[in-house]
Amino acid sequence: MTYRALDSYSVIDYLRATPSLANVLDLKTPMHAREVGDGNLNLVFIVESETGGQSVVVKQALPYLRVAGESWPLTRERMRFETQALIKHNELAPGLAPQVYHYDEEMSLVVMENLSALEVMRRPLVARKRFPNFADHISTFLARTLFFTSDFHLTGVEKKEMQAKFINPHLCKIQEDFVFTNPFMESPENRWNPLLDAEVQAVRRNSALKLALAEMKMSYMTHAEALIHSDLHTGSIMANEEMTKVIDPEFAFFGPMGFDVGAVLENLVLNYLSHFAHTPDAEARRDYQAYLLSLVRDIWTQFTAKFDALWVENNCGELMPAKYWEYPGGDAAFVEFRRRTLAHILHDVAGHGGAKMLRRMMGIVSVWDITSIADLEQRAVAERLAIRIGSRWVMERNSIQGVDDLIGIVREEAELSEE
Amino acid sequence: MTYRALDSYSVIDYLRATPSLANVLDLKTPMHAREVGDGNLNLVFIVESETGGQSVVVKQALPYLRVAGESWPLTRERMRFETQALIKHNELAPGLAPQVYHYDEEMSLVVMENLSALEVMRRPLVARKRFPNFADHISTFLARTLFFTSDFHLTGVEKKEMQAKFINPHLCKIQEDFVFTNPFMESPENRWNPLLDAEVQAVRRNSALKLALAEMKMSYMTHAEALIHSDLHTGSIMANEEMTKVIDPEFAFFGPMGFDVGAVLENLVLNYLSHFAHTPDAEARRDYQAYLLSLVRDIWTQFTAKFDALWVENNCGELMPAKYWEYPGGDAAFVEFRRRTLAHILHDVAGHGGAKMLRRMMGIVSVWDITSIADLEQRAVAERLAIRIGSRWVMERNSIQGVDDLIGIVREEAELSEE
Repeated sequence: MTYRALDSYSVIDYLRATPSLANVLDLKTPMHAREVGDGNLNLVFIVESETGGQSVVVKQALPYLRVAGESWPLTRERMRFETQALIKHNELAPGLAPQVYHYDEEMSLVVMENLSALEVMRRPLVARKRFPNFADHISTFLARTLFFTSDFHLTGVEKKEMQAKFINPHLCKIQEDFVFTNPFMESPENRWNPLLDAEVQAVRRNSALKLALAEMKMSYMTHAEALIHSDLHTGSIMANEEMTKVIDPEFAFFGPMGFDVGAVLENLVLNYLSHFAHTPDAEARRDYQAYLLSLVRDIWTQFTAKFDALWVENNCGELMPAKYWEYPGGDAAFVEFRRRTLAHILHDVAGHGGAKMLRRMMGIVSVWDITSIADLEQRAVAERLAIRIGSRWVMERNSIQGVDDLIGIVREEAELSEE
Repeated sequence: MTYRALDSYSVIDYLRATPSLANVLDLKTPMHAREVGDGNLNLVFIVESETGGQSVVVKQALPYLRVAGESWPLTRERMRFETQALIKHNELAPGLAPQVYHYDEEMSLVVMENLSALEVMRRPLVARKRFPNFADHISTFLARTLFFTSDFHLTGVEKKEMQAKFINPHLCKIQEDFVFTNPFMESPENRWNPLLDAEVQAVRRNSALKLALAEMKMSYMTHAEALIHSDLHTGSIMANEEMTKVIDPEFAFFGPMGFDVGAVLENLVLNYLSHFAHTPDAEARRDYQAYLLSLVRDIWTQFTAKFDALWVENNCGELMPAKYWEYPGGDAAFVEFRRRTLAHILHDVAGHGGAKMLRRMMGIVSVWDITSIADLEQRAVAERLAIRIGSRWVMERNSIQGVDDLIGIVREEAELSEE
């Protein structure tokens, strides 16, 4: 079928003409569709059976990606990467990503599980909502998707065959430009709070920081460690008190594992900082901020425990085969190899997480937790802290020994500003 | 045309039926072909016009690669990677790789420049021959092929599109297994001088060394820095007093740049060690060994100068765009970024070069410079030194400050053994 953009009528005709969907949706009953996307990149329809119960989401790429000025090939490619990644995520971390029911390459369209019972995490985090299963779920998602696509689990041939399917140049370029480069030099799309002019200029002229950011970009562009989601902020996570689902993996490619873990943690820190404005009540603020930092600690701690356990239980990758460690003292060396690997990932969490914190303050893409602070002075308080914390995470990354060092930097800077 | 293995008659018929070769070979005159390959992996024919002057080499992959037990898909793929890489090498480093005249994917066959005027470097290096242009040529080859395929020159999109053509899982696996893993554990194909039993066992049980080797394997498997040759030992280089040509790039893929530079340098060191047996005359030996170490120094020094100059002159890659460094102090930061990048490459030269030195002593693939020493006791002298030097290069890699530190380790160990 030739590509055509659907609307809330034609989407129903499309579904009725797709018999493979019969097991998730009664295709003969009346249906109702509404478009819920933001209309920039994708059309998103929720389609419900009018006899109740059954529903699906239909996501169709529009042949236009504003930010990159690219068109049709990017559209097709984007939906293919998203679908491939969703299927892989479901396989590796069942229940933690929306299920894919149908994919149509010509139409750049995917039909998937409706997640209406869940909400994107940014708003509830600003409203100080708590998610009792979040640390457990997201650490499982990270540990399983990263471990099972790494050289610690796959053979070299298996990994490279999967890597070939995830060579994702155009979407990588968006992250390369807008995370690591453009925010830190003059570029017309950059946006920042005008009260931050001095801080933005200082970042652009800080050679130690810019050298560190260049090294993080090199890591992003060259370190093909595992299949990463590559855009795993709290706007790509839907949750409620019971469930957690990771959505929108169109940026997926083989990159550094710390980029994903860092994205989750830095977004929790940005949310933490936003409460200096959103939560004027000091007790309520400290209470929720402490909760957020406990999430940061729990996610890292559980991630490392799960990643390490998966490695011990499934050590069939070629880096290194079990036999390599079969000698007197080899068990301890294998423990040490795992420890060093996780230490390396933590350094990357700091480096990539810090870079992403900075870009949200001075690049094209801001973060709702903070831009929703109407008062520019109040907003600047959070943003100045984000710049200081992000800069320190990046520059001090290689001396970070544990997650408490990351948290310590947040606390030190936040407490300084409260004095 | 369906694949069929050629012989010294049918190869001539094949060439006559390939009109695109008319500009390099008079297809109407009588021709003569002889097979000069070792018959394991490839057929190699030199085909000469009987009226004199014109000649070509025809290389055809046999549908069998002994070492990996794989068959047809690997055959086809291997010749495609070799041809793609030869064409790229000619484009980037003109005159330093054989020219490709014709490629036939179905036949797994390439017709290329005849290099009969040159010899593979191993034997002349054992015969203490000198190559006045070698350091200049090979440093140019390394600097140009690595720089121009790196993120310092290419855009992210250009690089990933090239990378997609060089996903080379099966040939990578050969290097992953036989350079970084199997030599250092029990594996049936390993071979070593029986006088070295104790040393081989000690390497297999040395946890600090094995952890470092695992990190080098991780670098090889995950660091997609540039299009590397990936088998650049002195058996893959043909030279005479005037010319140098790099051959056999079928292992090419996007990997760590230090792997190629390290391969050249460690093979010169192994040749250096072989002269303790090959050159009993102390003065002649020291003289030639000093020449070999001067090559090591010159190649590294010229490589860094050329790589750095190419970067300054062609800074159009996305890591980082020139504009990123446009601020007061930015010039110095760009200098520092280049310095750090070359320091990182040198650490990888030590790590990968050391790993390759070790595997030649105890893995499936030895090195003719040393195996041509008939007396096992004499051979063991060179081999023990190679194990000590290789181990130190790997373990001390991150404290190597300059090429003189690499050479210093060779000298220290060699002089100790002479005392």
